Amino acid sequence: MGSYFAPRFRGKQAHGYTEAVSIIAGVHPVREALRAGRQLDRILIAKGAGGPKLQEIIDLARQASVPVRFEPREALERAAKGGVHQGVLAFGAAQKYATLDDLGEARCLVLLDGVEDPHNLGAIIRSAHAAGVDAVLIPDRRAAGITETVVKASAGAIEHLPVVRIGNVRQEMEKLKEKGYWIYGVDERGEEDYDRVVYNGPAVFVLGGEGKGLHEHVRKQCDTVVRIPMAGAIASLNVSVATGVVLFEWRRRIVRS
Amino acid sequence: MGSYFAPRFRGKQAHGYTEAVSIIAGVHPVREALRAGRQLDRILIAKGAGGPKLQEIIDLARQASVPVRFEPREALERAAKGGVHQGVLAFGAAQKYATLDDLGEARCLVLLDGVEDPHNLGAIIRSAHAAGVDAVLIPDRRAAGITETVVKASAGAIEHLPVVRIGNVRQEMEKLKEKGYWIYGVDERGEEDYDRVVYNGPAVFVLGGEGKGLHEHVRKQCDTVVRIPMAGAIASLNVSVATGVVLFEWRRRIVRS
Repeated sequence: MGSYFAPRFRGKQAHGYTEAVSIIAGVHPVREALRAGRQLDRILIAKGAGGPKLQEIIDLARQASVPVRFEPREALERAAKGGVHQGVLAFGAAQKYATLDDLGEARCLVLLDGVEDPHNLGAIIRSAHAAGVDAVLIPDRRAAGITETVVKASAGAIEHLPVVRIGNVRQEMEKLKEKGYWIYGVDERGEEDYDRVVYNGPAVFVLGGEGKGLHEHVRKQCDTVVRIPMAGAIASLNVSVATGVVLFEWRRRIVRS
Repeated sequence: MGSYFAPRFRGKQAHGYTEAVSIIAGVHPVREALRAGRQLDRILIAKGAGGPKLQEIIDLARQASVPVRFEPREALERAAKGGVHQGVLAFGAAQKYATLDDLGEARCLVLLDGVEDPHNLGAIIRSAHAAGVDAVLIPDRRAAGITETVVKASAGAIEHLPVVRIGNVRQEMEKLKEKGYWIYGVDERGEEDYDRVVYNGPAVFVLGGEGKGLHEHVRKQCDTVVRIPMAGAIASLNVSVATGVVLFEWRRRIVRS
């Protein structure tokens, strides 16, 4: 499994929109970027590298009209700056954060209020995509952004699932309510069990940061706060596990029933 | 949040039983060790440190007859070898791995066949404890053992949930079947949906390593292999999230219904 590099932000950020230039390294990430239709500037493949997986990348690149160049392995080493590249690098055009308006009519959103661990953020993006969620919303501040670790932990899902950076969490929640979303906070102090609450209409699930739960002012603004009933002396879950449990219950009840 | 240190194994290992000496650092881990009734040799508190959380530790230590000594902060720094200690260190007596015989009649076990990431192992122990699982079984080889990272990621749950190290996975599965457990593999190639399969009698959930799923020979030995139906182009979950989703469905159906 190869790895992505942290996007180098151009510093342009307006209207919740951020543009980044990134290098994608490794067979799996490059293939996923191509499959997802991500706009790529070019792909470098190490001279002498081969095999069916690289051939698949070359075929996908051809279909997508992305130029492929074969260069000495040392050139890839330099560009990858010591990262694992498995003989293939893609130079990404901007990976864009989506905006709420891009999403159209969504059925389910996840809003993370203060998740700081990039492994957790990546795992949540992966779970959200697998559960059929339409987008993940993360605040501009006091939260993990999209770094190399997040991209790796998402196992390719980030190429397929829109991530929206939002400003003020409460204001965004208000806007989402106006658009007809029902807002479910997830917190151990919740008043309804996650598997007994009624889910209908478009839903937003809001989760707080590691070990902190939801901020008081955010919790108050939720339409319903759900809890996951637990056993044990340490009745707590990793935030990415809690998100997975709730999203797959939503999926089980709403999408698959 | 403080941190545990990796146990220093004394090298004694027989009959699946391993003894380790460890230093526990930080307010939360030391408190959880005391609450769990873990045998401790002594506790060091930095001179000048105070507050209600340390007082709680002192009270708990008194109840448990664990000697508390106040020493200069530099003594704690040296013993903690640069780790975060928040003014409190506990010198653990052996943290023991449990044996299958210790467990008695268990209702639910988790067997991890090749989970290598300590964050995942810790998160799984945390989820398993919160779901009401009786023990987590991990192989001696090709798997993460109990390190500092595992203990931290378990958020204290490892003090309460027995961890059993096992030898040959297939032999152990055979023994568990003989004891009357029904063995559910969890794998994307499973033939039944996790939320529709019948759960009755004592259960063992078996999960494979990151990105690999179950080994073929392990999969064949399961009584039933269940899958989590997913959406999305990248239909995969982090192993700790997949474990959480399945365990909380089991809990929802068996324990809480």
